[in-house]
Amino acid sequence: MDKKSTNTVWHQAIITRDDREKLHQHKSVILWFTGLSGAGKSSLAHALEEHLYHLGISTFVLDGDNVRHGLCGDLGFSDADRVENIRRIGELAKLMVEAGVIALTAFISPFQTDRLVARKLVPEGDFLEIYCRCPLEVCEQRDVKGMYKKARAGQIPFFTGIGSAYEPPEQPELIVDTDQQSLTESVQAVIELLRQRGVLSA
Amino acid sequence: MDKKSTNTVWHQAIITRDDREKLHQHKSVILWFTGLSGAGKSSLAHALEEHLYHLGISTFVLDGDNVRHGLCGDLGFSDADRVENIRRIGELAKLMVEAGVIALTAFISPFQTDRLVARKLVPEGDFLEIYCRCPLEVCEQRDVKGMYKKARAGQIPFFTGIGSAYEPPEQPELIVDTDQQSLTESVQAVIELLRQRGVLSA
Repeated sequence: MDKKSTNTVWHQAIITRDDREKLHQHKSVILWFTGLSGAGKSSLAHALEEHLYHLGISTFVLDGDNVRHGLCGDLGFSDADRVENIRRIGELAKLMVEAGVIALTAFISPFQTDRLVARKLVPEGDFLEIYCRCPLEVCEQRDVKGMYKKARAGQIPFFTGIGSAYEPPEQPELIVDTDQQSLTESVQAVIELLRQRGVLSA
Repeated sequence: MDKKSTNTVWHQAIITRDDREKLHQHKSVILWFTGLSGAGKSSLAHALEEHLYHLGISTFVLDGDNVRHGLCGDLGFSDADRVENIRRIGELAKLMVEAGVIALTAFISPFQTDRLVARKLVPEGDFLEIYCRCPLEVCEQRDVKGMYKKARAGQIPFFTGIGSAYEPPEQPELIVDTDQQSLTESVQAVIELLRQRGVLSA
């Protein structure tokens, strides 16, 4: 028995983000998808994840399904709660990046200020904002979850695009026009961005 | 251009925890370290992480350093805030596990109920509670961060072990006596547990 352990501060070994990126053999970044409800953020994030998976890349998609009922289960949809929701998602994505994982976040995240808070959590260049651009009419016509109908009926008071504003990114790293590009084209556009940024090898 | 994309719901590809475990070539679990301040939770978690890293295992340590100022930066030390702190850490660890990463959490987490909430977030067997057992006197004598001195001086009202109770786990998966075992021995004990549980191959 090593008696030294009783009175000394144990050796503090620290495995860093850099070490984890080496283990996973790729850089980790945040891919922050933003856009109206129904613009295809979640579909694009998941399709991209599938593509990256087959390249041996470690990824994780954060979206309403795994965050709103768990980590952010205590939050509603007031302005303050929306800000806090995005703040936590940013912090969560940051930890994923430190774990050497590419974090894909798929939330409307309508406000510039909130997205900027998330951007500033990680070193410059590690936050790639991808604007899933799609006209409101198209999103409303798709109405995948029946949310627009409810919003128009006044059942969801601050629904983005109806009762609350969406602030488009001013300088996103990428714009994907989801009403004009196929899913495959959109995935390829993000892959190209990841190549340009050195996340994937060219 | 694939015009179908405009009017159809995009294909929802879902990469699962199972897929990610295959990619990383190991199971993912939560290793929940609990014990008094100064019992060596963080040191053990980091030393274990270093060991696992060299075995090619994807890990991430959640501790005060990367959680208290970030994700839980809005929380104080009231009873309600402590409960919320542990709840969020549990949710965070769960997401890490879903990302195929072994999550090591190093928080005092003094209350049974809170630890049970975290345990129930993941399938049975995926939450391994490791009790870093160490007499209060020894922790207080170590007083690595000078916290016990402050607590005794009344500057930290609800410090665990002084002004607030620590509830030892009733059935932890492992007990490590950090005042009697060396760090190396403690690491080996956890490795042995991971072998028994099939997280690492025997």
